This record gives sequence, structure tokens and C-alpha cells, in this order.
Amino acid sequence: MEPQTSTNEVLVNTIKTLAMDAVQKADSGHPGMPMGMADAASVLWADFLKVDPAQPAWADRDRFVLSAGHGSMLLYGLLHLAGFPLDLAELKRFRQWGSKTPGHPEHGLTPGVETTTGPLGQGIANAVGMAMAEAHLAARYNRGEFKVVDHMTWGICSDGDLHEGIASEAASLAGHLGLGKLVFLYDDNSITIEGKTDLAWSEDVPKRFEAYGWHVQTVDGHDRHAVLLALTAARAETQRPSLIACKTHIGHGSPNKQDSASSHGSPLGKEEIRLTKSLMVPPWPESPDFIVPDEAVAAFDALRARGALARSHWEETFSHYKAAYPELAAELERILRGELPADLAAKIPDLGDKPMATRVSSGKVLNALAPHLPELWGGSADLAGSTKTLIDKASDFTRHDRSGRNLHFGIREHGMGAILNGMALHGGIIPYGATFLTFSDYMRGAIRLSALMQQKVILVLTHDSIFLGEDGPTHQSVEHAMALRLIPGLTVMRPGDARETAAAWLFAVAHQGPTALLLTRQDLPAIPGTGAGLQRGGYIVSDPPNPDLVLIGTGSELHLCTGAAALLAAQGVTARVVSMPSIERFFAEPAEYRDTVLPPKLLLRISVEAGRTLGWERVVGPLGVSVGLDRFGESAPAEVLAEHFGFTAEHVATVAKAAWDALPASVAALKERLG
Amino acid sequence: MEPQTSTNEVLVNTIKTLAMDAVQKADSGHPGMPMGMADAASVLWADFLKVDPAQPAWADRDRFVLSAGHGSMLLYGLLHLAGFPLDLAELKRFRQWGSKTPGHPEHGLTPGVETTTGPLGQGIANAVGMAMAEAHLAARYNRGEFKVVDHMTWGICSDGDLHEGIASEAASLAGHLGLGKLVFLYDDNSITIEGKTDLAWSEDVPKRFEAYGWHVQTVDGHDRHAVLLALTAARAETQRPSLIACKTHIGHGSPNKQDSASSHGSPLGKEEIRLTKSLMVPPWPESPDFIVPDEAVAAFDALRARGALARSHWEETFSHYKAAYPELAAELERILRGELPADLAAKIPDLGDKPMATRVSSGKVLNALAPHLPELWGGSADLAGSTKTLIDKASDFTRHDRSGRNLHFGIREHGMGAILNGMALHGGIIPYGATFLTFSDYMRGAIRLSALMQQKVILVLTHDSIFLGEDGPTHQSVEHAMALRLIPGLTVMRPGDARETAAAWLFAVAHQGPTALLLTRQDLPAIPGTGAGLQRGGYIVSDPPNPDLVLIGTGSELHLCTGAAALLAAQGVTARVVSMPSIERFFAEPAEYRDTVLPPKLLLRISVEAGRTLGWERVVGPLGVSVGLDRFGESAPAEVLAEHFGFTAEHVATVAKAAWDALPASVAALKERLG
Repeated sequence: MEPQTSTNEVLVNTIKTLAMDAVQKADSGHPGMPMGMADAASVLWADFLKVDPAQPAWADRDRFVLSAGHGSMLLYGLLHLAGFPLDLAELKRFRQWGSKTPGHPEHGLTPGVETTTGPLGQGIANAVGMAMAEAHLAARYNRGEFKVVDHMTWGICSDGDLHEGIASEAASLAGHLGLGKLVFLYDDNSITIEGKTDLAWSEDVPKRFEAYGWHVQTVDGHDRHAVLLALTAARAETQRPSLIACKTHIGHGSPNKQDSASSHGSPLGKEEIRLTKSLMVPPWPESPDFIVPDEAVAAFDALRARGALARSHWEETFSHYKAAYPELAAELERILRGELPADLAAKIPDLGDKPMATRVSSGKVLNALAPHLPELWGGSADLAGSTKTLIDKASDFTRHDRSGRNLHFGIREHGMGAILNGMALHGGIIPYGATFLTFSDYMRGAIRLSALMQQKVILVLTHDSIFLGEDGPTHQSVEHAMALRLIPGLTVMRPGDARETAAAWLFAVAHQGPTALLLTRQDLPAIPGTGAGLQRGGYIVSDPPNPDLVLIGTGSELHLCTGAAALLAAQGVTARVVSMPSIERFFAEPAEYRDTVLPPKLLLRISVEAGRTLGWERVVGPLGVSVGLDRFGESAPAEVLAEHFGFTAEHVATVAKAAWDALPASVAALKERLG
Repeated sequence: MEPQTSTNEVLVNTIKTLAMDAVQKADSGHPGMPMGMADAASVLWADFLKVDPAQPAWADRDRFVLSAGHGSMLLYGLLHLAGFPLDLAELKRFRQWGSKTPGHPEHGLTPGVETTTGPLGQGIANAVGMAMAEAHLAARYNRGEFKVVDHMTWGICSDGDLHEGIASEAASLAGHLGLGKLVFLYDDNSITIEGKTDLAWSEDVPKRFEAYGWHVQTVDGHDRHAVLLALTAARAETQRPSLIACKTHIGHGSPNKQDSASSHGSPLGKEEIRLTKSLMVPPWPESPDFIVPDEAVAAFDALRARGALARSHWEETFSHYKAAYPELAAELERILRGELPADLAAKIPDLGDKPMATRVSSGKVLNALAPHLPELWGGSADLAGSTKTLIDKASDFTRHDRSGRNLHFGIREHGMGAILNGMALHGGIIPYGATFLTFSDYMRGAIRLSALMQQKVILVLTHDSIFLGEDGPTHQSVEHAMALRLIPGLTVMRPGDARETAAAWLFAVAHQGPTALLLTRQDLPAIPGTGAGLQRGGYIVSDPPNPDLVLIGTGSELHLCTGAAALLAAQGVTARVVSMPSIERFFAEPAEYRDTVLPPKLLLRISVEAGRTLGWERVVGPLGVSVGLDRFGESAPAEVLAEHFGFTAEHVATVAKAAWDALPASVAALKERLG
């Protein structure tokens, strides 16, 4: 017998009318996509999606990603009708202050929203990360009949998603890895905000995805039976991710705006909504708006029954699993709760006092933590050797070995960033990803979303300054440290030696939010006095009695400060040295603490960082000086660059001495200004 | 008769040995790629490339782009052997301070280097921009037999380039536009830095490029005759861009390192170089290094003769063209020189005093300038209507209409950024590209290169704050203005009304370097006193006698400052209002000027910008206050957000009044600190 969909016309029309009504009421939003995809999405939800709306956070639920986040009303309608805790009152407050129905779906705000989408292409990559996480956790934790991790990742994407390079990167990797439990419906409606997609787009999408190694089908997206068959075939295909190109009509059912860009990003207008409702079969009542017929809710009975049963089965399975594999079960429960094992700090060996690049100490710390943190999972964008992010003696995660701990993202930084977000969102994973700091530019769109969602994602960004040397200005970071500090909710840590690197890793794995570790290519000496103080953002590393001034360094410039302090001491000037690996953490500390590190009466503060000085004024204050680099670098050996650009202990000491000698005059000038 | 290549084994071996020797001497660099592509590249240069090494800047030369910039020694070897002004002494100073042979090719430093490459994927998109520029200028200026613009764009790309999403974006657009004069050799060597490409990459590249609409061939990259035939076919294909997948061996000829990642990014080692040279046919002398046999130079005789003749023919053609079409010729000469017509400012009409969004005034200015600046050419990443970047009554640039002035980049921000760079590098074009400010994150890698190369590229970045409203935090810029200001050499302009917008455009078209125009979605009032002062970065907009304090605003917050000044006046506090659309331009002004705008004795300075406050300390000084937003936004109507986040004239006045009242105490506290 052919499978039958449990959807019906009333369900579909309810989704459409809720979208039309909410966008109209908000006088803002995108009705066309929800109307165009109501048919296909309703089939996916009614007949396939494994979720329990009563327990939205159940660990083994299917994940659903609306990559085309501008169609948020589609998701809100589905969530409401499926019985997730999202009242109709919230739908009526679409896009209003404090509602659970913002313009684009926001993870953490609305139960059932698995990721924050809107910036195009991100959701596809998030879904790839979720499917990778599922495959990996399944390989690690499933035993025989006990399939405690076993779910699909479904998504909907738009033309716009597929224009974006990030989607190409993620799709190519998904095909390479053979992620058979990943299925995307592609809303192929031939319309973008500007008009017809053929203004800028004439590629053969199915062929492109076949080239990536995907299983591709094309269907009429309004033929729900065809969608049902295609989703069935997609689920049955276990060796390749699936793309189902759904030929749809944007604004489907609107007599004057269907197939037109005018239904993309604007309300249809009251008259057009009235007309559209009147043409529905049977005709939809003209008023009130926001009608939800019982029949629409009933169409998701199958979803609810299926989800509740699956969850209950899973709980039973898990209790047997717990009895059979108590240690594994306890570990899985721990990582799903996002808790760390006790005493992690004790697992990190003494890294010694030999000069060592912080990328190298980072690699050692990672390898020390890895046996105790099975949830730590990551890799690099084709720079494993350079970024020191391989876990020793571990295998690679491949289509044949899902338990592999080392990931190879390929040279796909933006995709990597969003895949990391998907892994973190999935749960059970603390993901890390590595590249050179300069190429954080390529992944900034994804980093911003890590920060907005406050996901525990660790970015290992090495070769973090001009001191990468000969590769030259295209690869030398100058503005990146400060530019990353500007992203709200992202913690930037630029450790100055191996001990600080260890402390930074311990911070990153514990902190609920993304952390960027900025690490050196070149060796740095171990600096007496460094360590866990780093977690407060800034702290005193060395301190003579009654210091005359403060030298404030980050990362590879910290040892220039200690070196300069010694040179200054020989000239009779005493300098406190402060390490400030994280400006934003430091300013999150109470003023009392900050004043112990940078006492108001200690007037002369000199920051030293091989990057832009803009922003350091906040730290150094009115009489401060910043030693930095406000231009692009040059291609030359690192030592040559250090001399030319003044990043030597000698130059720092010279600057500090000159500022110290000038301090009485500077104070007098400021006093004169103050009147 | 079959075509014959004018290359020979000696030429190829010279290119290889120069790369081996230079990398070894620098003890840094990438020998494998130059060795793997020496065969194919030598055919392209010897038998196809139309350049005159004696006149590297000849306007109608073919463009050659080495997208895989890490293989820079391939390009330096070719340039030297072809006779460009690049001495062997420079090759011996590879990757050293002040040399013309930096680690990655840098445009502007080395004659014949058409673009700065290294960050992967950028070069492909640059080449697409160059080919678009050529097609457009050809359509505008060629007349009958007078083909004054008629050249190819050739490039070499690597696996790494093709991993990157930016390359997908650019290649998809190139296929859509049918850029038949664009040909890329793809170095398909199956090796990346990490190892075999199949670690992370198993896609069918030829099929993927066919899906984009490219003409694709696959050849043995070491079979020079096969490469010759493929390049011949590629040039003959005029309706589609061409990709020639060259199966190559990285480190070709090295007995122990060929086909291995160890030849990718490190010197081969002296012994391996000796072995490699000894195995060449005939064997290469073991010493000295950097041998350049006459036969290698002679192999490029054809290139030099072809180039000199073509240039001479072109000059003759151009002189006839000039006689026949004096106005067209004068215009083409002007735009190729990069000069502007006189009196542009006079072309911009009075924009009136009605409230107007700066994106709208920008659109009006663009349309006012367009008839007088045929070189102004651009469009948006699918946001033409929102960013107001369409030129009225102009046609679209399509595969059928190369004269079209409106570009449609599709939802490909990163590709757009790098394509704009390619257009500017081509010459004869002032390119502009538009998207929402938040999505500047997606194109940051390309913007950085606009700045590094100091190309005249105009970015129209609208919806520049939380005031885009309901779309919510995913679309609301908070950190972007300051983060862009951090890129060295990029000018950020955030105009506060229509007059400032006009002045900002006039700055952007005249300034040799990239400019980002940050524009509002929402209407802004016209503010008396605004105008051309903007070009100094900051200037006085309104000024009572003996002001008590200074309010400093940018963009949509400037009118809050004037509003607050009025409210303060009613309370007996007088406020100067300063517009500071560009912090970096302001600080480029002499101190004397800055002190007239922000007199040292005017202690209380209050900045108002709906974004991060970090960085504003430089402007507001020791007793300053910054009104800003140090968190992500929310989805709600703009007016609601203004109230909640304190961006109203009332709130600014309240903050200013409180700071004014507290000023004596603040001054006293600072004096106390100063001792």
C-alpha cells in the first residue's frame, strides 16, 4: 500500500493564514515563503519529524532547521499547531518587543527553535554540524540494540541559502562525509527579494548537489503525496545526504502576488489577504484573523502520538542501557547536561619553562584534556599541523569511521564556524575549530551567531600577528583581535605563555559562550607569575614595590613587557607588569578588583599589543600610551618585523622611559586643561 | 596543422628550480605548486597571454590572476623570464623586508601582479570582476572595427581556492553571465597542507562547474601539448567561462616529495633539491642556484613579440578611434587614468529638507552622479530595492546586454566584495556594491583586500543599526561600524542626513581607497549646518557661543544630538554639536584642526552612536561619556527600540545634563588622581 500523508488542506491553509495575518498585523515580515512551503513542511512535520512537543529538549529528538529564517512564521505556525509551548497570543505579537516570535527565529527564546537563522546559508551548515554530532555520538554511545542516539536532521532552505558560499562549503563536506541522516527540502520558488532568481542565478542546483555527492530528487512542492514519497526515499537513503528540490510558488494561493517578489518581504495587504482567503477550498472566513480550526490541530495528532511514543521508548531503552553500560550512560548523561568532570585543571601536566609557541602549548593542553573530555571534538580548516589541533593517536572522523575524533573541515572557514555552532546546539559536544587568526574574517558571520546564541564553541586562531612573518600582510593579523572583541558576548583570550594557554583552555571549556583563543606561531618564553589569574581578564604578573608605571601586555607582547620592566629597572624606573588577555573579561570584573590591578593613582599605563591601538584607550586611560601597529604588516622574517615595527623589549622600554620622563609635563598639561 | 607550443623543457625546469632555490634560500614558502604548475603555466604564458612586459600597465593587456597566491614563486619566475621589470636579485630576496617578492603576490608592489592573492578564493572572484569589467567596457567603447577593449582574463586556481565558498559564489555568477573570455587552469594535484585532499573533499569538480554553466575540460597538466589544445578550445568558447582541470603532481620532479604535502608549504631541503636537479633531463647543474639559461628566456620570445605587436596595433587602432570618436576616446582615456570630470558637486541637486533615509538620499546622489560618471558601475547582493542602488532607466548587465549598468550579484556578499576589487583593479571602473551593514561580516575577507590594495571600491551598507527594527538581532548592526574602522586604510563614513550623504559620495568617488558608506533604513531630518565638512571626518554642525559641552554624533544619532542640544539649552546648558562620520579621517587631520572642533578645554564630550562604545574613548577623552549599545538588539519596531535602548534626544539630554552636573566632581576626582 502506498503511504498516505496525515496532512490536510485545513492544516496547510491554517499555516498560510497565520503567516499572512501575523505579517499583516506586524506590518512587517515575509509571508511568501511560509505560503509556498506550507504544503511540503506540513508533510515533513506531520509524517516524519520525531519530536515530543511536551518535551522540546528531549535529547534524541529529530532536529529541524529553518535555514531560510525569514520564513519564521512558517516555523511559528508549525510549532504552535504541533503543540509546542508557543501560544497563539505570541503569534499575534509577531516581531514585537519581548515576544517569543521575533522577525527571525532565535534559539533559546522559543522552545522548538533549534538554531537562530536569518543570515542566509548558516542554517544549512548548522544542520550539517548537527548531523555530524549525531553520527559521532551514535558511534560512541550506541551498543547493539541500544540505539540511544538515533535521529534525523531535517531542514528547509531557500534559493538565497544556496547562493551563499557558506552553504556550498557545508554541502560539499556533508556529501564527502556521506551524512545519510541529513535531509533538506529546497524551496525552489524562483523568486528573491530583487525579483526572479534568474537575475543572478541560472545554475543547475540538482547537478551541483550531485557533484557534492548528495542524493537529489525534484518534486512539485505543492503535491503533498509526491513530497511524502520523496521524504520516504530520502530517509531510506542512508549513505548520502538528501536534497529534495521542491518546485513551489512563493505566496502560493495569493491571486495577485503569487510568484512575485512583492510577496517576499512585505505584507500582502488586507484586500489581498481577504481575496486569498476567499479563494481557499473551502473558502476561509474573512474574519477574525488568526483562526486555528480543530482540524488543523488534529492533523498533527500523528506527530504528537509518534513523538510521545518514541520518547517513551527511548526512555525505556535508556534505562536498560544504563543498567547494561552504567559508565557509558553516566558519561552520556553528563555531556548532554553540559557538565564537566571534576578536577580538569589537575589533568594538565606542567608544560615546563622552555620557550614554546602558544599554538604548541595549546596542542599539548588539548591532548591532555581530550581523554577526560570525550565531548571535546573538532579540527581545523586544513591547518591541523600549523594550528596543532590534532588529537594524538585518534582516528579521523570519516564516512567509514564515525567515532573518529579528528575533524577535517577542508579550506572552508565560514562553513566550519557554522558547523561548530550546529554541533554545540546539538548537545553532547564541545566543538573546536582552528584556522589562522586573519581568516577569522572569513567566518565572522558564523562567529557572530555563536555569540548571539551563546554557544560553547572554541575557536583556535593561531599565527595571530605580524609575527607569522614571511607569509606577509595578507596573512598577518593587525585589526583582528580588537575586531573580535567588539562582538558582544564573544570572549577573546590572547594568552602570553604556556601556563596562560592552559588557563585559557580551562576557561573556554567551562564558559557558556564562545571563546576565541589567539595563539602565536612563534616561541614565547615562560613568564614567572602567569596562570589562572587570566580568567579575570587582566591581572598582575610581576610587581616591584611602589611601581612607577604599569606595562600591560597581551599574548606575544607580554614578555616584551617583562623584558622592558627589567630594562627600566636598570634605569631606576619601576614597572608593574599586567597581563590582559581579555579586555572584555577584565571590564566585567568589579571596579574594586580592577582598581587593584590598575590603581587610579598609578597614572602611567602603557599597553603593548601587536595590533590596532583603537580601543586600548579604555584600558590605558587619560595619560596612557599604546604601543601597537596601525598599518598592515610586511613580508619578512619575524625578527626583522619586530625590529622595524618596534616590538622589542628595548623599544617598549624606550617608549615607557620617555613617557615616564614626560609624565610631570603631561600631568601639568592635563591639570591646565582641567582648569 | 596542429598548434605547437613555444615552451620547452628548459623553460619549465628554470621555473621549477627558481621556485625550489628561492624557497630554500628564504627557508620559507611553497615550492610544490610552482613545480606542479610550471608546465601548464608556461604554455599559457608562452602561447596565449597577451602582455607587453615593457609596458606592464598597457590598458588592453590580458589579465593573469594567480588565485593560489601561495605559489607566488611561479608568478615571480614567469614575470622575470618574460621580461617584466623584476630582477633576478629580487627573486633571491624572496620573502625579505623591502623586496618586490613578498610571500604572497602584492599588487602595486610588483609590476605585472594584477591583484594581491593568498587568502584563498579571492583571486577567482577578482578575475570574474576583471572579466565583467572587460565585457562592460568593450560594450560601451568598442565601435565596429575599433576593438579598443578586447582582452582575456586568465587565472590559475588550486583545490584550496575551490573549497572556499567565495569561489563558488563567483563561479556561479560567472557561469550565469556567460563570461566567455574568462579561463582558469585548475591545479588538481590532490594535495593540501593537511595531506591528501580526500581528507575533506571528494566532490566532482568538473560536474560542479558544469552545473554553474562553465565549459569544462580535463587534461594531464604535465602534457604541454594537451594543455595547449585545451587552452585553444577554451579561448574559442566565447559563451561560457572555461575551467581546465589540470591533473598535476605537486612538487613535480622531486623524487621523494612529489605528490606529498611535505612539498606544499616548506622548502624541499638542499639534498632533495640536489636530487631533483640531478634527475632533470638534461641534468641541471648542482650549483650555483638561481640559474637562468638563455634558452629559458628565449622560450618567451614569442610572448614578447606577440605582446609588443599587439600593443603597437592597439595604439594604432586607438589613434584612429580617437579621430573617429573623439568624445568616446577622451572619456575612455579619462576613466582609464582614474580622473574625475570637473565640478561633480554641481551635478547633485538640492535634496531638500524633507526627512529622508540616508539610503534614499544615497540613491538620489548615485542617480545624479551616474550620467556624469559612466565609470560608476555596481549593484547589490539581492537588495537593490532596499539599498536603493539601482540606476534609474538603466538596463541590467546580463549575458545578452553587456552595456547594462545595473549589476545583480545574487545573495553572494563575499563574492561581490572580491568581484568589486577585480573591477577596480581592471581599471576604467569605479565599482560599488551594496548589502545590509550586518552582512559586511560575510565580505570582510574581501574588504580587507580592498584596503590592503587601496582600491577605489565603494560599499553601500544600509540598515546600519538596530533601527532596521523588526528583522531583529541577526540583522541589526551593533559592532560593525567600529569593526570596519579597525581595518587599516578603509574609510568608514556614516553620514547624518542627505547633505552629508552627498558629501560622502563625493568623497568616495574621489578617494583612492575603499570607502564604506553606512546608511540608514529610517528617515532622518535634514540638519542645518551639515555638508562638505564631513570630508574632514569631524566638524562643527551647530555651536552656541561659549558652549558648555560637546555632543558628537554619527549617522542617525546626529539629529539626536541637535535635538538634545535644544533640550539642554532650555535647561541653561549650551552644547556644541559635532558630526563625526569618520573617526579615522578626523584623526588624520592636523591637531590644530582637531583642536578647533574639540578644544582641549571643552572637557565634557559626549559621543552618541547606536553601536559599541569601545573605541570612542579616543574621541571623548578623559571625562567623556559614550552613549551606545554594548549588547545585541531585539526584534521590535524601531521606535520601540529607540525608547528601550535610550536613543532619543530626551535620553541623550538627560545623560548630558547629568554629566554636566557631575562635571565639577569628575574634574575634582581626576585632579585628585593626578595628585
